Order: sequence, then structure tokens, then C-alpha cells
Amino acid sequence: MGEEKLFVDFEKQNGLVPVITQDKTTKEVLMLAYMNKEAFDETLRTKQATYFSRSRNKLWVKGESSGHIQTVSDILIDCDNDTILLLVEQKGAACHKGYNSCFHTSVKTGDPVVIAEKVFDPEKVYK
Amino acid sequence: MGEEKLFVDFEKQNGLVPVITQDKTTKEVLMLAYMNKEAFDETLRTKQATYFSRSRNKLWVKGESSGHIQTVSDILIDCDNDTILLLVEQKGAACHKGYNSCFHTSVKTGDPVVIAEKVFDPEKVYK
Repeated sequence: MGEEKLFVDFEKQNGLVPVITQDKTTKEVLMLAYMNKEAFDETLRTKQATYFSRSRNKLWVKGESSGHIQTVSDILIDCDNDTILLLVEQKGAACHKGYNSCFHTSVKTGDPVVIAEKVFDPEKVYK
Repeated sequence: MGEEKLFVDFEKQNGLVPVITQDKTTKEVLMLAYMNKEAFDETLRTKQATYFSRSRNKLWVKGESSGHIQTVSDILIDCDNDTILLLVEQKGAACHKGYNSCFHTSVKTGDPVVIAEKVFDPEKVYK
């Protein structure tokens, strides 16, 4: 451990890099979040997706409230070393609004259209 | 046209939102880039993926040099309205280094390992 951190360029964007999270089985893109170096190191160490919450300004283990954790099966970096792609096994669903994916709204016609069904009731999960 | 721009929050991040680009058929995540409102409007209008290049500080029609254009089949926004997911038909390959995807390097063991094969020779494509 140690050397690998050089391959993610956390300095380019104020210490935070965008992280795309994809379901390893269905290949659905679940969400985009951010990691600082500490979140990256924790994710590597624990194999549980750990992000940096920009709104709460602290580390955030995905699923810590909902139980909807993400177990990491692979971690890829892009050719510029400034974006991460996580392949995960998603327990429950990724979106706090009750959908499998945070990307459940199409705007291709110019009007937003929800194209997915809720798979859980947020009011029951986030108490 | 007009109203739909309200559903993408370009102001939150200095006018630029991250855009995940996914192959609509294989579901492979190809790249991450950025759009400002003008790039988003151009993408909606032309159905050819158009980004904002942070390094060149101008609009960038993907494939304008290489011919590796991306024809957009769907545009999704996330639940925070600050990230875009494009589903595209990729002509050629997405990565300027010759790979299908910019995400061709795994760091899950701590050491970077290239896990894909090149599908074109960059020296022949970018002259």
C-alpha cells in the first residue's frame, strides 16, 4: 500500500475526484459521488464503498443509514487518473429516493420523464 | 426547449457538470467528461455528444479529430440534478489512447493493471 495512491490524482480537483458506481452484474450505472484520498484508502482497505460527502463535509460509508451498502469488486481509474469507476455488489438500492439508480429521469425530449419504478419506500428506510 | 435546462443545475459547480458516457448496447462505461449549458444544449440539439474541454477551455464535439463520434440515444439526470448520464452509440472507440473505454486500468490490488486491449493505434488516428 502507499504507491498506488500516486495513480489517482487527488490534487487536480481540490482533493476530490468523481467516482462512478456501477452494478457489477447488471452494469447499471447507480450513482456518482466523490472521494478524497482518505475515502479512497478506506474503500481499498474495507472493500465497502466509502465516499466524501460534500454537503456534510465528512467521510460517508454508503449504506450507513439505510443498510444499502456497496461491496466493491473492482476499482478502475481512467486514462487521466482523475476519475474512478467502482464495480459493486449493491445491497438494496443505491438512490436515497427509493430507486435502484440515481439516474432514473430522462431529459432527452427536453421534459423530464421518470423511467424507473421505486424499489423501496424512503420513509420506511430512513427513519 | 428552454424549460428543460432548469433540470440540470449548472450553477452548483462553476457552470460545469460531470457527464458519464455509457455504451447503450454493451453498457460499458466509456468515459467521464464535463458539460456547460452550451454543450448540453448542443448535445440535445444535434444528438452528437458535445462536451466542454477544461484543458482547452472550449466546446469539444467528441470525435471531431478522430471520427470517433458518439450518437446520443438517451440523456438521464441524477436525483440531485447535477450529474448527467449519456447513453450513446460509440463509433470507433472512446479513449484517445486506443482503448474502447478510458477505464482500462484496475487498481484494486493497489498496483495498476491494464485490463483491456487496444482497439486502434492512436498514432494512426490522431495525425
